Amino acid sequence: MDPQPGVADALPDAPPSSALVDDEAYRAGVIDLFGVLAYTELVAFERLAADASLAPTISDEAALALMATAEIRHFTRLVERIAELGGDPTVAMEPFVEPLTEFHEKTAPGDWLESLVKAYVGDGIATDFYREVSRVLDPDSRELVLEVCGDTGHANFAVATVRAAIDADPRIGGRLALWGRRLVGEAMSQAQRVAAERDGLASLIVGDADHRGMGLAELGSMFSRLTEAHTRRMQTLGLQA
Amino acid sequence: MDPQPGVADALPDAPPSSALVDDEAYRAGVIDLFGVLAYTELVAFERLAADASLAPTISDEAALALMATAEIRHFTRLVERIAELGGDPTVAMEPFVEPLTEFHEKTAPGDWLESLVKAYVGDGIATDFYREVSRVLDPDSRELVLEVCGDTGHANFAVATVRAAIDADPRIGGRLALWGRRLVGEAMSQAQRVAAERDGLASLIVGDADHRGMGLAELGSMFSRLTEAHTRRMQTLGLQA
Repeated sequence: MDPQPGVADALPDAPPSSALVDDEAYRAGVIDLFGVLAYTELVAFERLAADASLAPTISDEAALALMATAEIRHFTRLVERIAELGGDPTVAMEPFVEPLTEFHEKTAPGDWLESLVKAYVGDGIATDFYREVSRVLDPDSRELVLEVCGDTGHANFAVATVRAAIDADPRIGGRLALWGRRLVGEAMSQAQRVAAERDGLASLIVGDADHRGMGLAELGSMFSRLTEAHTRRMQTLGLQA
Repeated sequence: MDPQPGVADALPDAPPSSALVDDEAYRAGVIDLFGVLAYTELVAFERLAADASLAPTISDEAALALMATAEIRHFTRLVERIAELGGDPTVAMEPFVEPLTEFHEKTAPGDWLESLVKAYVGDGIATDFYREVSRVLDPDSRELVLEVCGDTGHANFAVATVRAAIDADPRIGGRLALWGRRLVGEAMSQAQRVAAERDGLASLIVGDADHRGMGLAELGSMFSRLTEAHTRRMQTLGLQA
């Protein structure tokens, strides 16, 4: 009997090779992954740019606008890669428009601080998730995921601003902690929906008969790590997760 | 008696020289001009990026988001130039936050087509105005104004989309024509407010005892040209000005 897969052996023995992209099912899964990632970046750009207008000072406003442009560079890189893999970027993004739009509609920030918490906490979870997933990808795809998940400088900005606001008025902390929990709840419910509707993407991540993914046990470990990282981020903001 | 200044002789006999920037009043006027121009670009970026989310298709949405990023490059160039001239970019932009915010609040587009008309008609008038004004500037400043007023590709996109929508449903034209007139009215009322409040900027453009601007007669001609160009743009969209 095979040993129960654990954290250590659930991942591929050797890093996934470049030959993977010759497999049609694998390629379709990767195109799906880049589709959701690209649309995530596009919408993040729109939201961040719009949030800039909520900033209380011109220098905050300018800082946020400049950070937003990093997202659009990422978007462009992902769209190029989808085309390289033989996919149509628009078709690849289409299935994710509704869940992402719904997520953003249900979590429209009421003010400047909520927009910062959303950007920091939301980007944090998304980035952690895509980094985890990158381990099942061929080298070129993995490199691209790590590149677009790079720091845009937004995190430090959000942390400093939110902490200063809580220092100035500690009551703000309670409201923002609730807000953080709501964001995670909505993100989880949309992620479940995507996982249920996009078989190819789910198989890419978890693995199936044809190729090795991270496996169900490792998937569970991944969710624990995502949750822990989220809790740390909330603490960094001075909030209870 | 000097001849009545006309279109031909109202402009400086020779292009304004680089030595102008040594004059303190001139420099303050130019910093004011770059302040309003920079804040215009920053807000245009935020609005354009937010409008992208109104787009009916993902490819339109992506196109608009990419065009928005051109504005932020312009913004960065202007902020650098303000600093080069010894100004504080934040201080330079501050006086224009209220009029520009008020303009955008009073002209929030109700839908995708209104947002395109606003971007095309509004950008068009602003660009024409800044190009006209660039003639009273020293060479470096003039070059920068012409650079940031360069085409971002947004115009062609707006024209094609609006015309197609009117072809599909001609009744749309009446509503958008009214919208275009409202945009110009609001823009004019905010421009008058700025001119009344910012003496240095008004003197830079019109001229005063210390340096030659375009003169009042030429200012009148300029407004005629701006109006004509606006009418042509409305016609290009298939709308009555």
